[in-house]
Amino acid sequence: MPEFFNVFAPDVALRTLLDRLQRRVETETVPTHQALGRVTAEAVLASEHLPAFPRSTMDGYAVRARDTFGASESLPAYLEVVGEVRMGQAPDITLATGQAAVAYTVGMLAHRADAVVMVENTQQIDATAIEVLRPVAPGENVVQVGEDVRSGEVIVPAGGLLRPQDIGGLLALGITQVKVRCRPRVAIVSTGDEIVAPDTAPAPGQIRDINTYTIAALVAQAGGVPVSMGVVKDDYEAQRQMAVEGLAQADMLIFSAGSSVSSRDMTVQVLNSLGSPGVLVHGIAHRPGKPTIVALVEDKPAFGLPGNPVSAMIVFGILVRPTIYALTGCAQPPQPTMVRARLTKNIPSVTGREDHVQVRLFDADRELCAEPVFGKSNLIYMLIRAAGVVVVPLDKGGLYAGEEVPVQVYD
Amino acid sequence: MPEFFNVFAPDVALRTLLDRLQRRVETETVPTHQALGRVTAEAVLASEHLPAFPRSTMDGYAVRARDTFGASESLPAYLEVVGEVRMGQAPDITLATGQAAVAYTVGMLAHRADAVVMVENTQQIDATAIEVLRPVAPGENVVQVGEDVRSGEVIVPAGGLLRPQDIGGLLALGITQVKVRCRPRVAIVSTGDEIVAPDTAPAPGQIRDINTYTIAALVAQAGGVPVSMGVVKDDYEAQRQMAVEGLAQADMLIFSAGSSVSSRDMTVQVLNSLGSPGVLVHGIAHRPGKPTIVALVEDKPAFGLPGNPVSAMIVFGILVRPTIYALTGCAQPPQPTMVRARLTKNIPSVTGREDHVQVRLFDADRELCAEPVFGKSNLIYMLIRAAGVVVVPLDKGGLYAGEEVPVQVYD
Repeated sequence: MPEFFNVFAPDVALRTLLDRLQRRVETETVPTHQALGRVTAEAVLASEHLPAFPRSTMDGYAVRARDTFGASESLPAYLEVVGEVRMGQAPDITLATGQAAVAYTVGMLAHRADAVVMVENTQQIDATAIEVLRPVAPGENVVQVGEDVRSGEVIVPAGGLLRPQDIGGLLALGITQVKVRCRPRVAIVSTGDEIVAPDTAPAPGQIRDINTYTIAALVAQAGGVPVSMGVVKDDYEAQRQMAVEGLAQADMLIFSAGSSVSSRDMTVQVLNSLGSPGVLVHGIAHRPGKPTIVALVEDKPAFGLPGNPVSAMIVFGILVRPTIYALTGCAQPPQPTMVRARLTKNIPSVTGREDHVQVRLFDADRELCAEPVFGKSNLIYMLIRAAGVVVVPLDKGGLYAGEEVPVQVYD
Repeated sequence: MPEFFNVFAPDVALRTLLDRLQRRVETETVPTHQALGRVTAEAVLASEHLPAFPRSTMDGYAVRARDTFGASESLPAYLEVVGEVRMGQAPDITLATGQAAVAYTVGMLAHRADAVVMVENTQQIDATAIEVLRPVAPGENVVQVGEDVRSGEVIVPAGGLLRPQDIGGLLALGITQVKVRCRPRVAIVSTGDEIVAPDTAPAPGQIRDINTYTIAALVAQAGGVPVSMGVVKDDYEAQRQMAVEGLAQADMLIFSAGSSVSSRDMTVQVLNSLGSPGVLVHGIAHRPGKPTIVALVEDKPAFGLPGNPVSAMIVFGILVRPTIYALTGCAQPPQPTMVRARLTKNIPSVTGREDHVQVRLFDADRELCAEPVFGKSNLIYMLIRAAGVVVVPLDKGGLYAGEEVPVQVYD
């Protein structure tokens, strides 16, 4: 009756899946301004130079640089101001020797001008004359054509996750549509004879479904579309039927497995029955994530997550989130937020197992401290009250009070 | 013609606004499973105990603890197994002395049982008898009623930002609706004679609108609803009209101001004309965010952000994002992601000014290094190619190569 199975280190479990996974989700073309958080399906190239014209980086005067050579406060250069180049307009002024024209930040320069003198380095003599107090070199205070980005340059690689600045950069070049990966659809099946829907009053022995909803929220945070399939009893045929339906309409399947050994064994049987290669990993060298199942069903990833909501959430971060990003071909998925903190208590562990231990964070003596919160498993509010987790790596037997440790912050 | 104004330290500028801001956005009630990222309008109390019944934390045998006292591998306790309590069901078994019943993780215990023996600490003799190899104390491997959370306890404070685990915690208690703050509506006005829409081919001297879209994406990331008002010329009446319209339909107004001094002065005039107290801050002690305007118009925050898209994005993070959260009453807004890295070059600054300098991040000798990217301002691709920014604090004249510095990572 004791449970024996070969366990994989968490990173090995992930690699075992991702090395075999060929699948990428479909592509679609969306308006760039609605593409925040989407992953590009192909490299995007600059269609033109940016800027498209030499522009001033200052409010001041466009000049021919040579006319300012040698200028100083004691011996200024006198220039005739022959007009201005208004914002948003092409110049209608051509400078002759000894002439200047008013220039504005991001505006064009007068013809024949090759530099801009900051207004702070000039003195106005009258409406049409200035003194220049410092020389400028050719090109000074000017952004040249293509200096920001050159036509043909890769501005976003394939698999790039679009941030606010990328959206600005694409639109600056007039790229108003972008080809991105569809959001991966993730079917979520909640299993267990004891589970009832949250709007139900549980009878004695029943508990409300938590995992379907935390997992759905985590899927959405990772850029996926959760497809909730509902709750199913610990019945092989019923679970298999729901898994088939889930896989048919999604790119990935998650079983929130029951908490008992027999319930998890049923999940393994169901996943193995659906297609090849089936279950790749049954058990990871992790506390509290040990009873985790990783499968690949006809090139669709499938997971059996522990029934314990704390474990389910932690394993989601370790295995499921990277797999959602892998389905989009995302090259650099966002990493969890880490802070460094001083540990206040020893954390015992065993070599060969990675432990995630909930911690409370507080400031003491201007230093961030992490206090481990030990407690019985399966308490959702222990997770809610924690500020994050400390990871005890696979190769350590524990962590000592007083060590500075990395803490993954919940957000 | 040089620009003189009293500048505020960035944190003083923010406090100057938030100390006066009374406004909170309206409230609405939403389904809990759709409340990810929303901010609670009032404290939420547990409506019942969790768990609602004593439950096992293990697969094993529910026992009367005293029947196991003194048990050991050499002298086990013999117990009669009188049945099981199935998952999701109430017990129909009452233990007499010397009896045990099968118990499952998160399942109920038989009546009169007060502890659970892990299956690993038992030996099965036959279908109805086990040996117990280690004693258990009363309550061992059992979660008591209310041990996770007690009825009446505050489970989410007012102003709490709902995370996946909070959604699970609320639903575990059957709380399927939650009263949250509406998403703050943020009107965005883009100004400048040189600005044209991104789908337009710019004439010489014109540039495409970037800021409206990066700011809209940043607003959405901060939980707000961007309301894009479009582009308006540097014309006082036209800007004022659009600001009035924007404020009428939003909780906050952002002017993406023009890049020239005269354009910014117009923004100040417009904001001062709209209502009291008007402009509170004109200029912050920050590079590249100096030309920032902070106003309060009849208790609605208004900002004039620099026209430079790099500056606009950085100032958004410093001033606008915290203000969006303040409008929801959010007690602990998410903080930017920070990493520590070794600086590879000196960063000159001046005391009394906070500098944000773009950096590239790379690994060298297993250490994260930050290389400052200096360059002309106003280059959106400089921002896109950077991995984050190093902050040179107000009280420092610069940072030295070799220092370990905090880097705010773009994500």
